[in-house]
Amino acid sequence: MDNQLSVGRPTILDVARVAGVSHATVSRYLNKRAYVSEQAATAIDQAIREVNYVPSRTARSLVNRQTRAVAFVVRESPTLFFTDPNLSKMAIGANAALSAQNYQMLFMIIDSEQSAARITELIGGGFVDGVILVAMSLNDPAAQAIANTPTPAVTASVPLPDSLVPHVDTDNAGGIETLTRLLHESGFHTIAHLGGPEHEPAAILRHAGYKKALGPAYDPALVDFANQWELEAGRASMRRLLAAGPEIDAVIASSDLLATGALDVLAEQGRRVPEDVSVSGFDDSDWALRAHPPLTTVHQDSYRIGEELAEVVLRQIDGEDLQGFGRIIPNEVVWRESSGPRSDAS
Amino acid sequence: MDNQLSVGRPTILDVARVAGVSHATVSRYLNKRAYVSEQAATAIDQAIREVNYVPSRTARSLVNRQTRAVAFVVRESPTLFFTDPNLSKMAIGANAALSAQNYQMLFMIIDSEQSAARITELIGGGFVDGVILVAMSLNDPAAQAIANTPTPAVTASVPLPDSLVPHVDTDNAGGIETLTRLLHESGFHTIAHLGGPEHEPAAILRHAGYKKALGPAYDPALVDFANQWELEAGRASMRRLLAAGPEIDAVIASSDLLATGALDVLAEQGRRVPEDVSVSGFDDSDWALRAHPPLTTVHQDSYRIGEELAEVVLRQIDGEDLQGFGRIIPNEVVWRESSGPRSDAS
Repeated sequence: MDNQLSVGRPTILDVARVAGVSHATVSRYLNKRAYVSEQAATAIDQAIREVNYVPSRTARSLVNRQTRAVAFVVRESPTLFFTDPNLSKMAIGANAALSAQNYQMLFMIIDSEQSAARITELIGGGFVDGVILVAMSLNDPAAQAIANTPTPAVTASVPLPDSLVPHVDTDNAGGIETLTRLLHESGFHTIAHLGGPEHEPAAILRHAGYKKALGPAYDPALVDFANQWELEAGRASMRRLLAAGPEIDAVIASSDLLATGALDVLAEQGRRVPEDVSVSGFDDSDWALRAHPPLTTVHQDSYRIGEELAEVVLRQIDGEDLQGFGRIIPNEVVWRESSGPRSDAS
Repeated sequence: MDNQLSVGRPTILDVARVAGVSHATVSRYLNKRAYVSEQAATAIDQAIREVNYVPSRTARSLVNRQTRAVAFVVRESPTLFFTDPNLSKMAIGANAALSAQNYQMLFMIIDSEQSAARITELIGGGFVDGVILVAMSLNDPAAQAIANTPTPAVTASVPLPDSLVPHVDTDNAGGIETLTRLLHESGFHTIAHLGGPEHEPAAILRHAGYKKALGPAYDPALVDFANQWELEAGRASMRRLLAAGPEIDAVIASSDLLATGALDVLAEQGRRVPEDVSVSGFDDSDWALRAHPPLTTVHQDSYRIGEELAEVVLRQIDGEDLQGFGRIIPNEVVWRESSGPRSDAS
């Protein structure tokens, strides 16, 4: 904290000298990043006590030439970055948590392959101490390249494939499970699922929540997966669902955008919402509020997700090993007109 | 400096040697930052041709250890950063223009005195090659400290006080002048001005536009300045205007937010808008659209302002001296229900 002023304060160089090991070994040991022999560990522990070394974040910042900057990288359209309320709340939550620890958050937008390469290079080159990554698709090579630089990272998503980068995510399965139960309890009995792209982890988890809630009543004929997280894909999926099971009285879509596509098709085909069919989504985005009628959906606490993302990245900067770590944030169902009046039949 | 990387490529050291001047003189000449004698200029031009020296941005990036990053620093509430459409469009425009030149834009939010100090230190320490500064108030010491680091800077505002930092701004005076003329032509004759804080340059310029449009009909009794750019200040100012000149048939407020305060007070006092009094603002922010009735206002091309901000900062990074430079971006009046039907009486 004040080590600029305390000239005589011991550093890890002093620890290394007393322990008779290299500065790099002390650093590895303190940062818990790699193996150090038991002998070296004992010597370092002893030396730390002997020279009265106190590691502090600011001290480490000076030793390691840290920048005290954390990147918040978004792989989304720039417009969405500013208009999607979940994304902006997440960014504001992360900014507040980082700022409180005197870390500067840098928002960066990937808007082209060139910018992806540029950002990967900046982050890999030690421009920042850590990175929070928000990406639409996990199969995106740019996202993976950034997450896999040696810089401490965390993703706002399900786990990245073949990666131990820690992640913070909303409870995808639990949110849809609760929603399915509430609809069932409100008297809907032929509940279809309009899933997201079949191999996307968020879509897989949401479908699992739906399946778990229905238990033995689960019927694969009432499930269809959109091939993209896009409006038109939601429409196509809704058409397939209606063709396969015209008797459905509720549709649980895997996102508000897909649910909006479902509303379009139901309107086309003269089915009233919510009188004939209930429709619900996931995200509680602007799509949910602007839909006609407004959508029942799963609300994420995006500000809190942002704070948790900041915490996970700061803990790694502080030397904790969080490989493979995941934190699931609870969410809640918001009941709106697209599901009609809520009646608890249980 | 650059010999490490560009082995065979001529450098400005070669140019300096051949021209028989110092490296610093060549640099000054190339960067057009300061005076170089005509004799030196001729010798340098000759030497450039002789050694076949080609300045390039990338070469200079290596020479000067540039980061190819430009900060976009916002001194606003974090929430506003994501909800104010002008601010987000400005940021997206700047990001696109910088990205096209392979510069990475870093959004940073000043949310505390500590963050102001942190950002000033990052920017003053060469963390970025340039900075775009968006600040609510020009008297803000944090804004001035950032703008006055040696890093090339530009402000999205009227000129900073006592500073030669270049600026890009909407046409404050011209926008209000046009609006005042249009209202006058539509049959409003007792047009009051609810100005912004009296010593704020934007408020001064907007008031000047109003005064110019009215010419000899200008009446200082119909002018009041809010003491802050805030809703409550707009309400207080509107109350003073009504007390001083109850016969007014139009109010031109210096911002949409102040105009919203005016609407509140007019509603309180039973004056109908637009039947009894026309109300207009400036900014075309969400306040204008969400007002009842929606506000006539001055629309800024914020995306273009963002692009111009990027251009001004890049030109300085490229070595141009733009001290004291200002660029004024035209805007346009958007006529809405708060002014009633538009009738051109001219």
